[in-house]
Amino acid sequence: MGVGYEIFEKFFAPSSIALIGASPVKGTIGRAIMDNLIERFKGRIYPVNVKYDEVLGFKAYKSCAELPETPDLVVVAVPAKVVPSVLDECGLRGVKAAIVISAGFKEVGPQGEMLEKELVSIARKHGMRVIGPNCLGIYDAYTGLDTIFNPSDRQSKPLPGDVAFISQSGALGAAVLDWLSEAGVGMSKFVSFGNAADVKEWELIEFLAYDPKTKVILAYIEGVEDGRKFLNSIKTAVKLGKPVVILKAGKSEKGMKAVASHTGSLAGSYQVYEAALKQAGAIVVKELNELILVAKALSWLPVPKGNNLAIVTNGGGAGVLATDAAELEGLKIVELSSEVKEYLRRELPPAASVQNPVDILGDAPPARYKIAVEAVLKDDNVDLVLVITLMQSPAFEPLGFVKELSTLVKSYRKPVVLASPGGSYTERHIETLEREVKIPAFKTPEEAIKALKYVFLWSEISKRHTS
Amino acid sequence: MGVGYEIFEKFFAPSSIALIGASPVKGTIGRAIMDNLIERFKGRIYPVNVKYDEVLGFKAYKSCAELPETPDLVVVAVPAKVVPSVLDECGLRGVKAAIVISAGFKEVGPQGEMLEKELVSIARKHGMRVIGPNCLGIYDAYTGLDTIFNPSDRQSKPLPGDVAFISQSGALGAAVLDWLSEAGVGMSKFVSFGNAADVKEWELIEFLAYDPKTKVILAYIEGVEDGRKFLNSIKTAVKLGKPVVILKAGKSEKGMKAVASHTGSLAGSYQVYEAALKQAGAIVVKELNELILVAKALSWLPVPKGNNLAIVTNGGGAGVLATDAAELEGLKIVELSSEVKEYLRRELPPAASVQNPVDILGDAPPARYKIAVEAVLKDDNVDLVLVITLMQSPAFEPLGFVKELSTLVKSYRKPVVLASPGGSYTERHIETLEREVKIPAFKTPEEAIKALKYVFLWSEISKRHTS
Repeated sequence: MGVGYEIFEKFFAPSSIALIGASPVKGTIGRAIMDNLIERFKGRIYPVNVKYDEVLGFKAYKSCAELPETPDLVVVAVPAKVVPSVLDECGLRGVKAAIVISAGFKEVGPQGEMLEKELVSIARKHGMRVIGPNCLGIYDAYTGLDTIFNPSDRQSKPLPGDVAFISQSGALGAAVLDWLSEAGVGMSKFVSFGNAADVKEWELIEFLAYDPKTKVILAYIEGVEDGRKFLNSIKTAVKLGKPVVILKAGKSEKGMKAVASHTGSLAGSYQVYEAALKQAGAIVVKELNELILVAKALSWLPVPKGNNLAIVTNGGGAGVLATDAAELEGLKIVELSSEVKEYLRRELPPAASVQNPVDILGDAPPARYKIAVEAVLKDDNVDLVLVITLMQSPAFEPLGFVKELSTLVKSYRKPVVLASPGGSYTERHIETLEREVKIPAFKTPEEAIKALKYVFLWSEISKRHTS
Repeated sequence: MGVGYEIFEKFFAPSSIALIGASPVKGTIGRAIMDNLIERFKGRIYPVNVKYDEVLGFKAYKSCAELPETPDLVVVAVPAKVVPSVLDECGLRGVKAAIVISAGFKEVGPQGEMLEKELVSIARKHGMRVIGPNCLGIYDAYTGLDTIFNPSDRQSKPLPGDVAFISQSGALGAAVLDWLSEAGVGMSKFVSFGNAADVKEWELIEFLAYDPKTKVILAYIEGVEDGRKFLNSIKTAVKLGKPVVILKAGKSEKGMKAVASHTGSLAGSYQVYEAALKQAGAIVVKELNELILVAKALSWLPVPKGNNLAIVTNGGGAGVLATDAAELEGLKIVELSSEVKEYLRRELPPAASVQNPVDILGDAPPARYKIAVEAVLKDDNVDLVLVITLMQSPAFEPLGFVKELSTLVKSYRKPVVLASPGGSYTERHIETLEREVKIPAFKTPEEAIKALKYVFLWSEISKRHTS
C-alpha cells in the first residue's frame, strides 16, 4: 500500500506514548487524556509538563528530549503557539507519530494558518506524521489508546468491533461515537482528524482498508483537498471488500458557507461529489441517523443475494407502511413461492394473510412468528426479511420471541431486521434483541427498510467493484 | 356542524357505559376493558355477560334489556356472529352510541362483509351510531374512557393534552399512542375506527374540529370511501385553526395491494390523494416518525411569522448538517442583523462564529448559550431558532442549560427546538428538557429542522385557509 503503514500502526497501537501537556488538574484536557490512558492503555505512559515532576503517580518530564526512550506516539495538548517548537523537539528525539489536539490553527484565520504551515514543515523535516491539529484524536477500542477528552459519564465509547469511523468534526464525531456505543455497534478505530494539516482523510481510509480489525468504514467529511486521492482510497477499500459510508456535509449553498467558517475547507458542488463518490463505490448517506443505521446493518448482517423482501407482521398497518417504504427504496415485495404460501395457509389462522406482507395477526404468539419467519427464510425467492412486532399486543411474549428469532437468524444466512413502533416497553425489548441477537431493530418500518436497502446496495457495489 | 354532535359526545364522555362481553377472566378483552374502566372511568359501569351475576365487584346483567338505565354508550366485545343481535337489543333499549371491538367483518371476506352490512342496517334502524367494528375503540385522556385493551405494562397512554389522533389501523394506532406517551405529548382523544362501517373518518375529523380540547388532529388513513367529505372535514378543521396531519398508507402499488388485504379499503393513487389533501390544507407526512415529530412541534410551539431560521451550536459540524437540512426543507438561514452580530462579536470568544449558524464553540457553558440564543430571539429578522448542544462536551452543564433555555423560550414567542446527537447521557437530558420546558428535542439536526419546517408550513396554511 501507498502510505507509511508502519507509522500509521503507531498511531493506534503504540508501545509507548508521551502526553505533552499532561496535567493532574481536573477539568484540563491534559488531565482527561491522562485519565483515559491510565484506565485502559497498556503501553508505557510518559507525562510531559515543565510544571510537574509527577502526574497522577507517573514520573513527569520537562520535555521530549528528557524521555528515557523515543515514544512511539506523542499527543500534544498545549497552546497553539508553542506547538511548533514542541513538535520540533519531538522530531529531534526521533518521534515519527504525533496527534495534535490543540486548536487555534487554520480554523481561526490567517495567523493560525501560518502556524499550521509551520507545523507541517516541521513534520516534513523530521519525517514525522501528524494527525490534527484542532481534533479529538484517536480512540482504538482494541489497544485502549484514547485521546477523546470528554468526561466518561457523558461520552461513552463503543466496545471492540469491526466498524471504523473517521470524522473531520471532533464534536460531531464524539457525538456519533457516543451514539454508536449506545446502539451497541462495536468499533475498531475512531479518528477525529481535524484540520488534516498532514495526515489526510484519504490516507486514513486507505490504512483502514488494510486494517484486519475493520470491516466497515464510516466517514464524516466536510471538504477534501485532493478529490482524486480521496476517491482512490475509497476504491481501494471497496476492492478489498470493505464498504465505505460517507456523510458529506455542505450539501447546500449555505451549508458550503458554513463549512468554510467551520473547518476552512472548500466544499465543492455536492452533486459533483455525490456522483463521483457513488462512482467510486461509496455508500453516500444524507442524514446523521443513517450513519448509525448503516453501521449496524453492515456490521451485523450478512450480504444478501438480491433485493427480494419478505415482511412478517402482527399488524397490517405497519406492514403497509413497510411496503410503501420498500418500494420507495428499491426493494421488491416478492411473491412467495406457492409451497410457502400453502404451508402458511395450513399453519396460520384463517384470518391471517399469507401474501407478502405475511400478516400473522395481532394475537400472534412467538410460535406463530417462528412458523412465518422460518417459512420465508426458507423460501428461495426471499433475500431479505423484515419482521414487524407491535409489542403492545397482549399475545406478544418478548423472551420467547427473542429466543425464536435468535435461533432462526443463526440458522439462515439472510439479513433480518426488526421494526417495532412504541414507547418504553418496546424500546427496552428492542435493546435486548439488538444486544443479544445483533438483529438491527428500529422504531419505524421506514428505518428498518433503509437498513435493508443499504445491505442490498452494498451487495450490488461489491459485485461490481470487489476484485 | 353537520354531524350528530350530541351522539359523538357520548362516545367520549358517557355518564354510563355497558360493556357487552365483560369478563373476570384474565387475558380476555372483556376483562382488560373492565380493568381500564374501573381504573379511570368516572361514570356508571354495567358489565353485561350471560355467564356472570357479577364481574369484578360490579353487578352483571344478562342483556342490555335488563339494565337499570339506558347506557350512554355500549362497548361490544363478543364474537362477530352475535354482534348484530346484540346491537339490535341495544337499539331496542334506546342506545345511541356503540363501539364494536369485535373483528371478523369486512376484513375477513364476503361472509364478514355481509355481517357488516347487517350491523350497519341495524344501527340505521335504531338511529344508533357505531364505531368499528374491528377496532380498539377510544381513549379519552380527560374522561378516562378507555377501551384499548393492551396490557398497561406494555401500552402506555398519553396524559391529557391537545393532540387528537384517529387511526384506521388499531395495532399501529396503539403503537403510536404508546410512542406519543413516551414522547411526552399530551392527548385529547384517540379513536381506532377500524372498518368504519358506520362512523367515518371524516365525521371524526369534523367532530374534533369543533372539540374545544383538541388543537392538533393526527390521522393514519389507508383508504377513504368518500373523498369529498374527507377533504371537506379537513377544510373545516383548518378553517377553525386546527392543523390536520395525515399519514396516508398505501402510497405505492404494492402498498395499495397490502391495504386491500388489510382493511379491505380501496387506496386510490397516492399522487392524487396527496395533491388533494394539500389543496384542502392538510399537512401530509410520509413516515411514521414524522407523526410524533409533528405532534410535538404543533402542540408545543407557537406559530412562527416566517421561515427565517437562526442556528446556535456548540459544534460546527452539526451546524453544517442543520444548514443543509434547512435549505433542503425550505427554511432560510437568515442574515442576522448587524446589531446582533456586533453584540455577539463583543460577547462571544474571538474564535466563535457570529454568522448564522452562530458557533459558540465546544467549551460553551450555559451562560454563553443564553447570550447567543437570546440575541437571535431578539433579532427581528429571525422567526425560528434551532439550538444544537453536543452534550459530550466537558463545558456543557445540563441543569444550567435547561434553566437558561426555559426562561428564554417563555419570554419570546418564537419556536425553538433542540438537536442533540449522542447516547444515554444525551437522551436523559433531552427527556428532561422536553418534560420540563416542552421544547421539542431530537437526536439529529435533520429531525429538528423537520419539526420547524412543519410549524412554518402550518403558519402558511393557516394564513391561507383560516377564516
